Amino acid sequence: MAGSVSGAGPAASAVARPASPSRQALPLALTMGDPAGIGLDISLSAWLARDRRGLAPFVFFGDGEALAARAQALGLDVPTTAISDPREAADVFATRFPVCDVGCDAPVKAGAPDARNARAVVAAIDSAVLAVRDGRARAVVTNPIAKSVLMADGFTHPGHTEYLGALAAAHFGVASPNPVMLLASDELRVVPLTVHIPLARVAGAITSEAIIATAKILDASLTSDFGIARPRIAVTGLNPHAGEDGRLGAEDQAIIAPAIAALVRDGLDVTGPYPADTLFHAAARTTYDAVLAMYHDQALIPIKTLAFDRGVNVTIGLPFVRTSPDHGTAFSLAGTGKAQATSLIEALRLADAIAQKRDRAVAAGAS
Amino acid sequence: MAGSVSGAGPAASAVARPASPSRQALPLALTMGDPAGIGLDISLSAWLARDRRGLAPFVFFGDGEALAARAQALGLDVPTTAISDPREAADVFATRFPVCDVGCDAPVKAGAPDARNARAVVAAIDSAVLAVRDGRARAVVTNPIAKSVLMADGFTHPGHTEYLGALAAAHFGVASPNPVMLLASDELRVVPLTVHIPLARVAGAITSEAIIATAKILDASLTSDFGIARPRIAVTGLNPHAGEDGRLGAEDQAIIAPAIAALVRDGLDVTGPYPADTLFHAAARTTYDAVLAMYHDQALIPIKTLAFDRGVNVTIGLPFVRTSPDHGTAFSLAGTGKAQATSLIEALRLADAIAQKRDRAVAAGAS
Repeated sequence: MAGSVSGAGPAASAVARPASPSRQALPLALTMGDPAGIGLDISLSAWLARDRRGLAPFVFFGDGEALAARAQALGLDVPTTAISDPREAADVFATRFPVCDVGCDAPVKAGAPDARNARAVVAAIDSAVLAVRDGRARAVVTNPIAKSVLMADGFTHPGHTEYLGALAAAHFGVASPNPVMLLASDELRVVPLTVHIPLARVAGAITSEAIIATAKILDASLTSDFGIARPRIAVTGLNPHAGEDGRLGAEDQAIIAPAIAALVRDGLDVTGPYPADTLFHAAARTTYDAVLAMYHDQALIPIKTLAFDRGVNVTIGLPFVRTSPDHGTAFSLAGTGKAQATSLIEALRLADAIAQKRDRAVAAGAS
Repeated sequence: MAGSVSGAGPAASAVARPASPSRQALPLALTMGDPAGIGLDISLSAWLARDRRGLAPFVFFGDGEALAARAQALGLDVPTTAISDPREAADVFATRFPVCDVGCDAPVKAGAPDARNARAVVAAIDSAVLAVRDGRARAVVTNPIAKSVLMADGFTHPGHTEYLGALAAAHFGVASPNPVMLLASDELRVVPLTVHIPLARVAGAITSEAIIATAKILDASLTSDFGIARPRIAVTGLNPHAGEDGRLGAEDQAIIAPAIAALVRDGLDVTGPYPADTLFHAAARTTYDAVLAMYHDQALIPIKTLAFDRGVNVTIGLPFVRTSPDHGTAFSLAGTGKAQATSLIEALRLADAIAQKRDRAVAAGAS
């Protein structure tokens, strides 16, 4: 069964990540995602762009044979090489694409997802997370998965991010993991408070407690991961015009405003609720470091309008670094040569940058 | 009482607008909006920009004294002149700002709205609409009003647009006016299906009938007002990822998709429902002429992110042309010299362009 986290991996003490000068030599752990999607294509493109974009070494967790076959199908000159320990990645990365092999159970066909490969898709994620836990990789970068394919194999987690939360609980000893999705680009950082629920359920899912908890995770991440000493967080309203003094909905005043007041009392620089429509133009974006939005489209419309192909999904609130490209499996583009690796490359760069920031903080704390 | 439309204005036959070669000489009718807001400021700025931006003549419907006083307060050299018939506007526009006086009942103070002036705010709108009906002006351009101020005087219409619908019924003999808000800029045209209602009520307000009726009004406007022979309309989903095959909400498949199918059967080029977050980046915008979105922020976030200060609000589905700037009264900016007239100038330009297109169509139909 895909996505069963109990008992996976060797025993290890919680958060056993050593902070040492050699951590910079560790690779990023890149998962294959659904092998029928564009994950293989863009992974190959990213490796080819390693010098041009100055990418830190990364290792592919997934089916090495499928990766090599996709390279051949696309006419890309990418020599792959299997390694048994991710720590070997840095030595070979300049000339070969290192692979920690997680083999698929059924043949991989571009564009044709197969539930028989769900086990391998999930095993690649597990292995990548364990490599980070055990100090053999610095961060996890995930290629897109197709939840419907995994569900056919018994995957019950609401999504990729929630599954990583479950792995944090299983392997890092985190009692109540609260993974939060942050979308980041040069133009904007934004967090949706609620994510993959029907719009009709959004208003009922907005609570002061959730806003407070999420804003605190965001505040901490802006400092530890983005180097912002005193982050400024802008919070959207839920309703048009942030409710227009209650005439267009009560939640802005009854739920969101009190949460902001509580955060301010706790010393955070949080303001709002702001009408969402006027919060994302260039001048407005200079007034904050990140936005906490109330629901999926309210957060994702502005960042994908401004930075389509360049947005990165960062999971904050976890004991390990995880980024991913801000798009799906795009099955119809797999194997066609049309998939753009821009977002994955940005995800690799951001994972590297965040891991460096966290490692420096650990080193500073230890010295 | 503000906003009572019964019995206003002289009797006239329905849609008594003559189509003649001299229509191009008619001015645009610009309403003052709330005189305590930035409407006066940006009207003055627009007149000063008339040559630089090639603006067609427009006449101010509102308090001429307040307008002149605001010019003085702002240090703007704008000579105003009262005219009794809007048709005189073109002759004086080059050197003076023509005003059809609608006097306020209480002193006008920038930044301090006064419900005693609600009557004049509404009377200015009424007069402008009647001027268009009677063939003395070509189109209505409205400055922002503050609904809360008007409500204090008994204004019961949900908003500016709905009030114009009521005027269409009262003065143009339109049985069931269905005014639709279109936001337009160089980058994007977008219509929100639902507008000023709480988010919690959006899902329940989405009906196939409303989608069909609104898409048809949009289709007709794209042809008559924007000169697009065969408009391509993209419709958003309501839920994240347009419901992801029903897993994230039923409305996309149960309500929106059938409406699109019915429109296609009726010969329109309508597609969707599309995930809203990936519909507004530059490449996506080349695939349609306008978007029909399901709710306020879904429509207004992208256009205000892309074209803040330049978006224009066009009311389509009415027997007269009406545009307005895409912002509010901004009381705190009134009289400060900081208000930007960009959006009003675009609204004046677009009203002129649409009126010309409609007049040409009428002339072509008559010949």
